[in-house]
Amino acid sequence: MRDIFYPTTVAVIGVSAKPDNLGRNIVGNLVEYGFQGIVYAVGPSGGAIQTRRIYRSVGDIPDHIDLAVILTPAATVPSVLEECGQKGIRFAIIETAGFREFTQQGQQLELEIVGVAEKYGIRFVGPNCIGAINMENGFCVPFPSLKRIVKNGAVSIVTQSGGVGMSALNLMANEGLGLNKFVSVGNKLNINAEDMLEYLIGDEGTELIFMYLESIGDGRRMMEIARRSPKPILVFKSNIGKLGSSIALSHTASLASDDKVVDAAFHQAGILRVHDATALGNNMKILRLPPMRGRRLGVVSRSGGHAVMAADACELSGFDLAPFPDSFLREIERHFRASVIRLTNPLDLGDLFDLEMFASIVEGALQIPEVDGVVFLHTGISEAENLVSRKLLERIMGMVEQYDKPVAYYMSTAAAEVVYLKQHYDFPIFTQVVETVRALAMSHYYYHRQQALHAPPSPAERPARQGESQVRALIAQARKAGRDLLLPEALQALEAYGIPVSPSAMAASPAQAAQAAEKLGFPAVLKVAAEKISHKTDVGGVRLNLANAPAVEAAYTEMLANIRSREPEAEIAGMLVQPMAPAGQELILGGRHDPQFGPVLMVGVGGIFAEVYEDVVLRVAPIHESEAREMLESLHGYPILAGARGRAPSDLEAVVQALLRLSQLMVDFPEIQELDINPLRVLPAGQGCLALDGRIILSEK
Amino acid sequence: MRDIFYPTTVAVIGVSAKPDNLGRNIVGNLVEYGFQGIVYAVGPSGGAIQTRRIYRSVGDIPDHIDLAVILTPAATVPSVLEECGQKGIRFAIIETAGFREFTQQGQQLELEIVGVAEKYGIRFVGPNCIGAINMENGFCVPFPSLKRIVKNGAVSIVTQSGGVGMSALNLMANEGLGLNKFVSVGNKLNINAEDMLEYLIGDEGTELIFMYLESIGDGRRMMEIARRSPKPILVFKSNIGKLGSSIALSHTASLASDDKVVDAAFHQAGILRVHDATALGNNMKILRLPPMRGRRLGVVSRSGGHAVMAADACELSGFDLAPFPDSFLREIERHFRASVIRLTNPLDLGDLFDLEMFASIVEGALQIPEVDGVVFLHTGISEAENLVSRKLLERIMGMVEQYDKPVAYYMSTAAAEVVYLKQHYDFPIFTQVVETVRALAMSHYYYHRQQALHAPPSPAERPARQGESQVRALIAQARKAGRDLLLPEALQALEAYGIPVSPSAMAASPAQAAQAAEKLGFPAVLKVAAEKISHKTDVGGVRLNLANAPAVEAAYTEMLANIRSREPEAEIAGMLVQPMAPAGQELILGGRHDPQFGPVLMVGVGGIFAEVYEDVVLRVAPIHESEAREMLESLHGYPILAGARGRAPSDLEAVVQALLRLSQLMVDFPEIQELDINPLRVLPAGQGCLALDGRIILSEK
Repeated sequence: MRDIFYPTTVAVIGVSAKPDNLGRNIVGNLVEYGFQGIVYAVGPSGGAIQTRRIYRSVGDIPDHIDLAVILTPAATVPSVLEECGQKGIRFAIIETAGFREFTQQGQQLELEIVGVAEKYGIRFVGPNCIGAINMENGFCVPFPSLKRIVKNGAVSIVTQSGGVGMSALNLMANEGLGLNKFVSVGNKLNINAEDMLEYLIGDEGTELIFMYLESIGDGRRMMEIARRSPKPILVFKSNIGKLGSSIALSHTASLASDDKVVDAAFHQAGILRVHDATALGNNMKILRLPPMRGRRLGVVSRSGGHAVMAADACELSGFDLAPFPDSFLREIERHFRASVIRLTNPLDLGDLFDLEMFASIVEGALQIPEVDGVVFLHTGISEAENLVSRKLLERIMGMVEQYDKPVAYYMSTAAAEVVYLKQHYDFPIFTQVVETVRALAMSHYYYHRQQALHAPPSPAERPARQGESQVRALIAQARKAGRDLLLPEALQALEAYGIPVSPSAMAASPAQAAQAAEKLGFPAVLKVAAEKISHKTDVGGVRLNLANAPAVEAAYTEMLANIRSREPEAEIAGMLVQPMAPAGQELILGGRHDPQFGPVLMVGVGGIFAEVYEDVVLRVAPIHESEAREMLESLHGYPILAGARGRAPSDLEAVVQALLRLSQLMVDFPEIQELDINPLRVLPAGQGCLALDGRIILSEK
Repeated sequence: MRDIFYPTTVAVIGVSAKPDNLGRNIVGNLVEYGFQGIVYAVGPSGGAIQTRRIYRSVGDIPDHIDLAVILTPAATVPSVLEECGQKGIRFAIIETAGFREFTQQGQQLELEIVGVAEKYGIRFVGPNCIGAINMENGFCVPFPSLKRIVKNGAVSIVTQSGGVGMSALNLMANEGLGLNKFVSVGNKLNINAEDMLEYLIGDEGTELIFMYLESIGDGRRMMEIARRSPKPILVFKSNIGKLGSSIALSHTASLASDDKVVDAAFHQAGILRVHDATALGNNMKILRLPPMRGRRLGVVSRSGGHAVMAADACELSGFDLAPFPDSFLREIERHFRASVIRLTNPLDLGDLFDLEMFASIVEGALQIPEVDGVVFLHTGISEAENLVSRKLLERIMGMVEQYDKPVAYYMSTAAAEVVYLKQHYDFPIFTQVVETVRALAMSHYYYHRQQALHAPPSPAERPARQGESQVRALIAQARKAGRDLLLPEALQALEAYGIPVSPSAMAASPAQAAQAAEKLGFPAVLKVAAEKISHKTDVGGVRLNLANAPAVEAAYTEMLANIRSREPEAEIAGMLVQPMAPAGQELILGGRHDPQFGPVLMVGVGGIFAEVYEDVVLRVAPIHESEAREMLESLHGYPILAGARGRAPSDLEAVVQALLRLSQLMVDFPEIQELDINPLRVLPAGQGCLALDGRIILSEK
């Protein structure tokens, strides 16, 4: 992969002398960025650009070529790549568009390209991309004409859209953030985003990675790579599709919309997701600083108003304002001119105009052990202050290194000075108070995710494997009959994996049902078991609280008649008889096989909560015990389970175990497309939980 | 008020020749901004600055003075103002800090200042502020030294913090937004934020108002003024306090945290609230365009990635992508070079490089009646395009005027060109895709709020006044006994105002209770009525589902014993007997007297929803019928009430009526500090609702 960014000899194919030729721009960019290698131009018309020969074919170049940049019409790309292969070129960047993103024919062309690449062992980026940049050696091959607007630095970018990549570069230029490498992966036909991510994590010059993605290829591989990364990874994932509308009400597994899976997967892999350019810019900046290790912030502000805004933002971001010790405040007080400001945290510098003193105060705050980070809110009073203000910034840069704590340096002053600071110092300058505190919250989140990811997993967190052969038999039986699992089979599968289920028995007649109920105990429940009916309550297929045998028999007969009239097609296997479960809270547990991320787990607060309040939490399986607990704690309705307002706390440990076993079941059986436990009745602490109903849908294949 | 911004002769008091004197900056700013009037400097040491005489006292100035700007030590301000009064000066801006925001002594000084001002009829801004700016006449008196960084324009600013005001000016300068007037109101001792708002709404040069507020004085007056405003008002209200932690679980009225009242009041008054600088900048820009009247957006983008991001943002903002007619798409298709892009909305311009054509496409989109607004996402490909790209912008500016629809013009290119566009065109240039769509959503919200506010109120929307004398008597009785209303009294008060309450009777003994229950019907409910017990369930003061007379008697005796042992202090007035209410959904209704906004109403979904999911909606009373309906529709749990998933729809009309009557009750009786109806049992549609429990707390006075 390194060869994509560090070629010595480059052929740009698709160059002509026409003024609107885009290949010309590529050659121009290599010159503008001071590429340290040698560039050859190639184009069928020949001729010259800027005194440089345009070879009619790569074959004509009298030199070995490390890498070809191809921007010729789509139909010509396979033959151009063939020529490259013959020439011995092993790396290419194909920028041409017009492939599968456009037509069937384009898809065919892609297959041809893959064939040629395989034949010669060529690795390539694209097609349908704008190429790559490496600031270390001046390799810069996007087809838009680029000036050197971005500084050299440590941020690298992988983007699935050239336009978004360009706007990220503009953003970095504005923010004074330095670039290391840039690559637009386009259709990801050979080298994909995960490959690039893996390379950049190992790349010496890269310290922070930003990815813009519209689709995720191998989600599990991305998670694995990201989990190992010691470098922060920021991702803007767009193309979220019809968010929300896909939430089918009576179908719990579909509560897990794809975008929520992405959220869960990123959380689990320690990937930081951003949703807009503001967060992208501020997070890129904050992640260049030492991490915010704790929740206790010190705020030092030249404006009382900014201090108030920062205090609000702290609260909303879950930070505390660390109490400043009295000795520290008394020391500051000595320096005030007219003592017009009350001293506290947030500290309003008021009429203190001594910028040397500001530095001492920030340093004093960093020295307080209870302070995990500082927000310094600076306001320029006049241009005359600029020079001394820059000295202040330099001192603070030193302190950040010395104390290994973040100082978010906010500056409100004329634009020209802000631009100067951003361009001349390798230190983030913030210009938005609230957004800066939010970025610190991201830093805190990132730090703790990394701690959790790299903590050694405790042994025996996963339950012992069990019941695998039993479930395999149940699935085989259903497959053979060309159907999904029936209700009693689904419950058996859950039970086989150690998930407690309500006792039950199948009955094929009213009398059998009454008999079963006598055995299981009254009051009893009847549930229809039929292949075609997945939403039993909608067809009157569930009856609760049946007090005695006659009631059970009557209910059986009635239900059967009702369902037969409503759903004449349904093949009714009989009725499942259960005793009424003890009172408790209700949860929904679910599983789903996601095309990108594989087995995914869901937990939601039962009843209308999961639907109306969308109170569900997802995780990619397998999960550890601590992750199962975190899932429950992440529910908005968690206080209900934990015992809010005098309620008995529910048996959360039993739910944790059920989630772990469900996780194992989903991992062991990729052929389970969807699984619901709705409801899981959770009894008071120490009394366990019970799956009252279950549904298992198999994948098509 | 006009005189504050349009003085002809100005005295700046507190000027000295010392280099760090801030009064000097004020004189300097008036020169820098080209003030069209005459300026006199005043300071006790006399001398001169920049060839200008410093008078020792305003009395020495040989001219009439319209306005004094005062920046002398706090202790001297009363006497300085006295001299101003004697000189005949009727307007002042007091920038000095160190008053009530700092000490008791400062508070005393403020009283003296108010006394002097009253004596001479002086109106003044401040103290503790940084003054005012009027771009129309170059009046610029903040004490920081200011360059002319902001353009002349139509945005005016009222700020409670000088520092935040300055950063808003920096933001406007960066965004190329033009300023009209600026005023920092500080301690608002004489002229307050509401006065300034009222003035600016009538001010000819102002078209959009931004206010930064840390406190709200007369909230109801602000609402009244804002409601009448034809100009958009953006407010950043900070100092939100301990948001969340003030939410006491068992106390429904306190679910109405102060900040939620501010949100509700702003919504009702058509004030737009912003929470960060990003939203402030983008909203200021979007509000300079015609409003987004509908939800149907057209997206035209030079980058496919930006188009995808915009489509996502549309969905999240509740917009639809208007379908582009076939004829329109075919016309565009003719112009594509290699036709590499599929045509749809969002429209990816792909390899179309003809910027003239871009303009035609945007115009074509604006001509589609189904398109309410357009997002044009432009990416600069090379510097060579800049000139033709500017022409494109000019054409689009013309179209916006012609078609009276917004075009949000996003530009991704080198910073220098963006700065050029922002400074040279009176048209908003956006640089963030997602944030731009969010701003359009704000425009759409604003437009519809304005429509709703200026729709003629339908007659007879408020219920006829009733029961006033009865409630007055109940309150008088409680006041006389030095207590709040007892449970039966609270229910009587509600009933007097036409809110349906459960039938009930008071009982002073087990036998009376049994007798009452016989009359009201079984199963019965018992609730303790005692002055000191506001949370009945916590002390075992509620018993439900009592099946017959012996059960009622037994429950009475048990409850009494229990409560007496738990709360020996409680003066138990007896037990309230009610029949069990019919099944239905539960809501919480509440009222509260807010110090800034007066009577406030609350509705929440009952049970744990209001608490754990914080599903409550507030409004400042009085409300109209449409507002009551909107309150219910704004609950997250509204689908439950409306009949989600086969549930019977609840009687929402009955709840609307109850809310209107509660509104009237709260308006009629400012002495009601807090009122809860918890629960309001809502029966199926057509069957009404019933207050099952009520609590009315009176204000201290």
